[in-house]
Formats: sequence, C-alpha cells, structure tokens
Amino acid sequence: MLCLSSLHDLAKVENLIRQKFASHAPRLREICAYLFDLGGKRIRPAICLMTAKALQFDTSSSQDLVDVAAGIELIHMATLLHDDIIDNAQLRRHSQSPYLKFGLGDTLLSGDFLLVRAFSLCAHLDQYIIDATERACVELTEGEILETPLAKVTHSIDSALDIARRKTASLFRLACESAAFLARPGDTVITHFSAFGESLGMAFQALDDILDVTASEDLLGKASGTDIREKKPSLVNVLWLKSGDPVAARMLLGEESVQDQQIADAVQFLRGSDVIIEARKIARSFAVEAESRLDEISRLVEVDLPSFQGLKDLVSYCIERME
Amino acid sequence: MLCLSSLHDLAKVENLIRQKFASHAPRLREICAYLFDLGGKRIRPAICLMTAKALQFDTSSSQDLVDVAAGIELIHMATLLHDDIIDNAQLRRHSQSPYLKFGLGDTLLSGDFLLVRAFSLCAHLDQYIIDATERACVELTEGEILETPLAKVTHSIDSALDIARRKTASLFRLACESAAFLARPGDTVITHFSAFGESLGMAFQALDDILDVTASEDLLGKASGTDIREKKPSLVNVLWLKSGDPVAARMLLGEESVQDQQIADAVQFLRGSDVIIEARKIARSFAVEAESRLDEISRLVEVDLPSFQGLKDLVSYCIERME
Repeated sequence: MLCLSSLHDLAKVENLIRQKFASHAPRLREICAYLFDLGGKRIRPAICLMTAKALQFDTSSSQDLVDVAAGIELIHMATLLHDDIIDNAQLRRHSQSPYLKFGLGDTLLSGDFLLVRAFSLCAHLDQYIIDATERACVELTEGEILETPLAKVTHSIDSALDIARRKTASLFRLACESAAFLARPGDTVITHFSAFGESLGMAFQALDDILDVTASEDLLGKASGTDIREKKPSLVNVLWLKSGDPVAARMLLGEESVQDQQIADAVQFLRGSDVIIEARKIARSFAVEAESRLDEISRLVEVDLPSFQGLKDLVSYCIERME
Repeated sequence: MLCLSSLHDLAKVENLIRQKFASHAPRLREICAYLFDLGGKRIRPAICLMTAKALQFDTSSSQDLVDVAAGIELIHMATLLHDDIIDNAQLRRHSQSPYLKFGLGDTLLSGDFLLVRAFSLCAHLDQYIIDATERACVELTEGEILETPLAKVTHSIDSALDIARRKTASLFRLACESAAFLARPGDTVITHFSAFGESLGMAFQALDDILDVTASEDLLGKASGTDIREKKPSLVNVLWLKSGDPVAARMLLGEESVQDQQIADAVQFLRGSDVIIEARKIARSFAVEAESRLDEISRLVEVDLPSFQGLKDLVSYCIERME
C-alpha cells in the first residue's frame, strides 16, 4: 500500500538499522531486534527516500541518504522504547511492549543505545543535517515533556498542536528536509519539503489522535481510548473539552483514574460526535497544506513522477484513514 | 583539592554546559539545572582539560576542547538521570534525586535531552573523536545492561571488572583520549593517555565500590551498602562471594530483599575484613597502571609540569581515599 516505489532502498536502510544493533551485550541486541520485528510502516525512512527520489537524486549510490534514513528510524525507535516506559504501556502492535517484556531498566538503556547509534550515523554528515537533527531531537523531548496530562495543566488547541508539532512532526520534517538537502535542489525547494514534512507529520498525529477513538482495538494493536485514560492533550481530547461537555471535564480534568466502562462509553459517544468532525477538519487542513507544498515544488523543479506520486499518495492515505 | 590548575577553563566548560540547558520547555531546563547544581567533582571535564594542558596544548583558545569536555559531562549527567530511575534511587548528593523530585517521565526525557545536546556538541569534531564518543557511549550502556544483579546472573571478578571498564572507565578514557587527540602529540602518546584514562577510571570505580562499604553515609550523600542492597556485581560484592562467606551467598544470591539491619551488619563486618584489603589491592593496581602510563608519557614528550602533576595528584587522591 505505502512506499512501493522505494522498496529496494528501504531494504538497504533496514539492513543498516539491523547492523547497528550489534553489541557486546546480547540483551541490547535482543531488545532492539524485538522492537524492530514488531514491524511498522517505517514511514520516516520511507518519506526520506521518496523525497530524495522525487528530486531525481540517485538514491542507489548515496550512503549519506541511507545513513540519514536509518538514523531517523533509530531515533524514532528510541522514543518508542522510552515512551512505553513513560506511559506504562503494556501493548505495542498486538504484542507485549518491550517495556513489559524486558523491564524498565533494560528497555531504558536500549533506548539510550539506539540514540547513540543514530547520532553516530548522522555525525559525519553536513553540519546542516547535524543541526537539523539536533533541533528535531530537542523538539521531540520538548514535545513529550510538554505533554502534561490535562488534569495537571490547562491546554488549548494551540498548545496541543504545538506539542504535536514538536513530538511528531519534527521527525517527519527532518526526514524530508535532510533528503531534500542531500539532493541540493536549492533553498526554496528545501524549505517547501521541510514544510511538507511538517504538515504531513501534523496530519499523521491528528489521524493518530482520531483513530485512538474511531478505530477498533484490533486495528490499533492496543486498547482504544488510551488518550482519554491518560488524559493526554490530544487534539480530540482538547476539542472535546472545548465543546463544553461536562463529561469531558469530569473525565479529563479530574485527578482520579478513569474506569474502563467510562472510557468505552466516551469512545462510543465521541465516534459520532461533532468533536471528531472538528478534529477531522483540522487534520484535513494539514493534509491540504502538505499537498499545496507538493504542488509548489512541482512548479519549481522537475520531479520524478512515481516517487512524487508516492508522496501524494501518503497524504491521500492520511485523509482516507480519517473517514 | 582537585583540578586547581584548570579552574578558569573549567568555568568555561560549566558555562557552556549551562547554555546547553536552554529549551522551550522550562521543565527540561529546571531538571538539568537541578542536577548540575547538586554539584560534583566535574572530574571528567577536569581530566580532559588537564590532559590537554599537560601536553602543552593552548587550552584557552580551543573551542573544540571546551566542546569535548562539556559534551562528556553532559553524557555523564544523562547517565546519572537514567541510573537513578533504573536503581530507584531516592538520594543524590544529600538531596532528593532528580527522579524522586521530578518523577520518572520527566527525568527520563531530560536524560534524552542531555544526550542529544552532548552529541550535537561533539558532532562537528574530527571523525576520530566522534568514533571514540560512540564507542564510549555504547560501552556505557553495555556496562549498565550487563550489570545484572548477582541474584540473577553469576559474575566473576573478570566480569565485574569488564562491567566497570564499560560503565565507568569508558568516559574517563574518552576524556583523556579526545584531549590528547586534539593536542596531536603522536599516536603513541594518545594511546598512553587513553590507557591512563581507562586505568584511572577503573581505580575510581573500585574506589567507589570500596567507599560504598567503608565511608560514612554523610560522606557518601546516600545510604551505605547500596551495592549490597541491590546485589550489584561490584568489586567488593564479587570478592565477598569469592571468599566463601555463607552470609554473602545468602544476601547476594537470594531473590528476597535484604533487610536494613542485615546491610548494616554486613557493612560493619566488611570494613575490617580481608575482602576490603583485597579490593584495595586491585584498586591500587589500577592506580599504579595509571601512574606508569604517565611516567611513560613524560619520557616521550615534554609536559607542562603543573598540569601533569595535577593528573598525578588525581591518582594519589584515589589511593589515599581508599585507605
């Protein structure tokens, strides 16, 4: 479905990622491989490769591109390991989370290990990419630490979107910006690709927030309504609060924990509500922004059509999954 | 007492470290500054600066040296934050540990943030230093993950020393090796400095293991006998087990947790025992190895005497504190 045009290069990236699990401590290898084998869309390396290809960059001969794509996925993996600890998550992709399976200490250290491996992959690259990587990673930790539960800190739609921009869109932006930088199409196009990545990332995070309520547990690979349980400043939760529903205030602003039945009822209610309609509208606006950046790029440079179409398909995929 | 000759440069390093706490998220700044203000010997940046000075490198005009020294301390700080989480440590330097004060999630993220800042400081340096930094950081996480409690995994003196080499000596080695590399005294001297740093780090870790038993809680800034409580494969614990004492086997190999009174009794017994004498002998052998590397270096190159003496004093300090 996704990223078909870059399958060969993606295999190279995946091989490099696996090589980076090498360690004198078998446990580090084991935990990293376990997480990697849980699967995933590998969307960050995929958009990195598709961006470069779209700019007619010879992706097959650029080790730098493979390094960037692998580095970004390794950073993403590190955040998954650490997020599960922070969220006390028991499930990931229908399986035991690494945190549940391997325990806090070893999972935490494996995340550190992956961060180190990621940085060393990027360290030999142009200072532009190093700076962009630092910025994205700093934003990532900022986004996570700013994501204080609604019961503790007041959030607005703006602050919720700012968090999404930092914690999710930053790595999407980095993937597109770094790949565009390597293809050297000129500053304007790099800026457009950077903005495209950010908007796509925002659409993905909004989609994630929506699916937490609208998708089945089977599709999610974990319980629905997790954002409600954790009183997260997700787009849906913030819109629900803003709607003035006293149930939202009671469940999300109270200190006490929310019962399973309450979450099931809330999910049921939200699925058909104006809250989700509003969330979709905002998500769609990011997808539209991403599309308009692509249109702009295609006016400025000659693009490789299949890869360019792949990027457009990603945006459409995002819109379709929302409905 | 320590590092007097490098005070001015150390202030530059400390300023840079503080600059790196800058963040859009006030909480990240707060946690990093809290940890930094708890104090500490700043021994890693200090030996970095002293190594460069000892090699007559103009430390006042090298931003690279300041970056390396600050980067290594930032990495060390990240590991302190993460270690407290892993060890469930309540106290650090007579105060609440950051983990106790700020909670798991925010402390974990602050450690990630510091790792990112550290790497971006080192990323513009020579590939030699980047590779050495990656190696040290990988060894660090390996050392920590291999440090499985004695109740779960059998350890020997060799495996305990291997863990110490990875988790502690690696950053000491990196500090000396990177500084020597920047001063460009030739490969042989770099190798000697690298080995000096490693041996000094081993002596420091052994000292730490000994002080856990011999020092007062007041001096330690936390409870004595922590290594016993956590059944760590510390040098002292492994030697105690090897001595054949059935109390050691009962306390360190059993799954059940050890009572406060048992720890107090064990600490009391160990203080006057052959176990500590043996541990001191091993610690002293690392200090002697460190000294012999310094002697070798002084035969190969002309050294700056005050800084060189500063490094020698560090080794002596280590030996004196053991007694």
